[in-house]
Amino acid sequence: MWPKNSPPQAFRARRERLTAKLAEPALLASGFARPRNFPNNRFPFRAESHFLYLIGRHIEGAGLLLRPEGAVLYAPAPDPAEAMWTGPAPSLDALAKELEIEVRSVDDLAVPAGTATLPAQDLETTVWLAEALDRDLEAGGGADVEGADLRLAEAMIETRLSHDEAAVAQLRQAAEATADAHVAGMAATEPGLREADVRAAMEARIIASGMTCSYGSIVTVHGEVLHNETHTHRLGERDLVLADVGAETPEGWAGDVTRTWPTTGRFSSTQRALYEAVLSAQRAALERVGPGVRYLDVHRAAGHALVAALVELGIFRGDPEDLYARGAAGVFFPHGVGHLLGLDVHDMEDLGDRAGYAAGRSRAESRGDRFLRLDRDLAPGMAVTIEPGFYQIRQILENAEELGDVADALNTAELARFADVRGIRIEDDVLITETGSEVLTAAIPKTIAEVEAAVR
Amino acid sequence: MWPKNSPPQAFRARRERLTAKLAEPALLASGFARPRNFPNNRFPFRAESHFLYLIGRHIEGAGLLLRPEGAVLYAPAPDPAEAMWTGPAPSLDALAKELEIEVRSVDDLAVPAGTATLPAQDLETTVWLAEALDRDLEAGGGADVEGADLRLAEAMIETRLSHDEAAVAQLRQAAEATADAHVAGMAATEPGLREADVRAAMEARIIASGMTCSYGSIVTVHGEVLHNETHTHRLGERDLVLADVGAETPEGWAGDVTRTWPTTGRFSSTQRALYEAVLSAQRAALERVGPGVRYLDVHRAAGHALVAALVELGIFRGDPEDLYARGAAGVFFPHGVGHLLGLDVHDMEDLGDRAGYAAGRSRAESRGDRFLRLDRDLAPGMAVTIEPGFYQIRQILENAEELGDVADALNTAELARFADVRGIRIEDDVLITETGSEVLTAAIPKTIAEVEAAVR
Repeated sequence: MWPKNSPPQAFRARRERLTAKLAEPALLASGFARPRNFPNNRFPFRAESHFLYLIGRHIEGAGLLLRPEGAVLYAPAPDPAEAMWTGPAPSLDALAKELEIEVRSVDDLAVPAGTATLPAQDLETTVWLAEALDRDLEAGGGADVEGADLRLAEAMIETRLSHDEAAVAQLRQAAEATADAHVAGMAATEPGLREADVRAAMEARIIASGMTCSYGSIVTVHGEVLHNETHTHRLGERDLVLADVGAETPEGWAGDVTRTWPTTGRFSSTQRALYEAVLSAQRAALERVGPGVRYLDVHRAAGHALVAALVELGIFRGDPEDLYARGAAGVFFPHGVGHLLGLDVHDMEDLGDRAGYAAGRSRAESRGDRFLRLDRDLAPGMAVTIEPGFYQIRQILENAEELGDVADALNTAELARFADVRGIRIEDDVLITETGSEVLTAAIPKTIAEVEAAVR
Repeated sequence: MWPKNSPPQAFRARRERLTAKLAEPALLASGFARPRNFPNNRFPFRAESHFLYLIGRHIEGAGLLLRPEGAVLYAPAPDPAEAMWTGPAPSLDALAKELEIEVRSVDDLAVPAGTATLPAQDLETTVWLAEALDRDLEAGGGADVEGADLRLAEAMIETRLSHDEAAVAQLRQAAEATADAHVAGMAATEPGLREADVRAAMEARIIASGMTCSYGSIVTVHGEVLHNETHTHRLGERDLVLADVGAETPEGWAGDVTRTWPTTGRFSSTQRALYEAVLSAQRAALERVGPGVRYLDVHRAAGHALVAALVELGIFRGDPEDLYARGAAGVFFPHGVGHLLGLDVHDMEDLGDRAGYAAGRSRAESRGDRFLRLDRDLAPGMAVTIEPGFYQIRQILENAEELGDVADALNTAELARFADVRGIRIEDDVLITETGSEVLTAAIPKTIAEVEAAVR
């Protein structure tokens, strides 16, 4: 499957839906490629997501002006001297025809007084925006917007929260390429190789699919480091590989999947037991997910199931309900069960918790809940990840303050038997439907039997 | 082969060599990771090259202060709360021991008056530097430095131009991984696949080698677009694949190689003829390269050989010397024959032409020479690329002004026979030695027989 772009009408409909919600005109910047080690050696250009949502193309140095009377894309006119180096670029007229939007030269950008915007991620784009709007802005400052910008942020969130047909088609494509990558990673695994070999096999599938990685790949035998981005270790015979890798479509839509598998293709009995525990937590969350459900309850369902399984295994002693209330889940599963998914792997996280948290809700302070990125009532068209885990994290397990009053309930002698499990995470991408939910990444091996078959 | 880091003494020796040349203290920033679509989703951090040259580690948010009494690395103290997410980080003391340099917290950075610096690539780092130095700086402004900064730039160029033993070892590692990538790309090629499939095979080798790409990979059947970074085309039966792909070691040293091969593993007779023409140009340049040789003469040797071969083939009519003088080489080979190679794929290009052009020399205006990035007298320890090419570029061939007085000499009917050659480039990495030169990338298939064998 080669990526298919969304039709221009999809973007026009999005622009119209958003504009209808706006009290003021809005200017959204596409941004500029980031230089790497010298001005001509740059990271691949990735447009700002809000721009991308409404235009669908990574057009560098452009601005989209939304006004009640219609949208105008201000883009740089192609430089004929560049064609020899980077290939022919469409004229502004051709671009207008292709995108079905009015296009003018960015040199003619003039912004009405009172125009709203959303902060860009980098300082170069922020300076560009600030000059166009003639006011101060903060790079990456989306969490702190006020006034007209805040109203724009809220309208954007409302629009982007519910994925339209084109968006769902993009998420499906991202899920499919992500699935291929995980299957390839499992097939490429063998003790004695390195993490980098598995990562290479996975990212090769994503590149060959015409996609890019939606975030820095985690492919590690040290899954207990939650965002471990080193890939230098050798795969030992008793190791589990934790791979958190996702594809992003050319239009910018993300996949985000984690699987954990044994290097030999055979889980040890202890690995198997804890893998089943995490799987039961994921199952509990997936059973809960659906329209009208509060996401915090999904998170808690996973935590409850995990604690129950750990009591079953003898790692915790006591009553599961009571243990959960005392924060037992957060000892081994300190992060949130998931987050919004869309054009960003943490969708709209550039706007801070505003997208993830419904009005009036904010992050809990407790160990198990404080890293939860999402607490909304789910609605049809939203996409979320479901990704419980189990990790033996020294910074928690060896810290009496962190353990708090769960310390007594922890059977460390029993836990020591599970030393061959450093970290397990199982993550899928889920679309909320009218009647329930659909796992977009269901094709990826997940049960113990499926995973063992895929590795060997 | 897994990458080996240079010993700490190599960096200390570099710092001492550079400091001995400095009249003022100098502060070099490592920089900050560039955000992608939201603050927590960032491109892999790659430190500024001048910092990397002297420290060898991608330590984010650090500053290196060079003073006659010794160097001090100002680094951020590790945040214990981060360890759970990104793994344990060495304490500043441990870092000092490991790097054999005095290390202090970046919070204590205080810079003597008159301290020189070199501009960073991005605005975030530039703001950081400007605050530390309490003066204005321009992001990516290395071409325009003045005063103490200019003196630092010149001392840095003098130091970095001549690669020490550790640098050469790094370049060899980069060359080896780059070679593996090209061999893998050839082996993966098959008509009907896409450019992205070949790119995936090549980059997978680089990732599996524990390295990264030193620049955006060019893998294309449209080699006539010199910096073509799209990978969407299908490989046709009559197409040539042009692949310009290089590996970068974890310490930042670059490989930069181009090969061109037929998708079927068999060059057509016309492809073969033009491939031999480019090969003869590369051979002429490689024969010329050595200590004391002016690089412009290497460039011209390649151009002369190419024009002679094109006359031989009947594409140009006339006397090769005369044609060359009229600019015939630039019609089909409009870029320079190469550039400096080191920590940057275009080494020190952040300082504009100051590194590439010896004092008193500047770019020629003529069609064939204007894009030449290097015109120094070569010396032992320098590394350069040698990369002539042949391209049918519409913007040149269909433009009477571009063709100038070569137009009459061009046999367009004969040229039409060669329509199955859009672009060919052959590029190797070369180290200048005491007695001549060494091709670091000699292991990569290059002759017609070698290339045909490697593809099929």
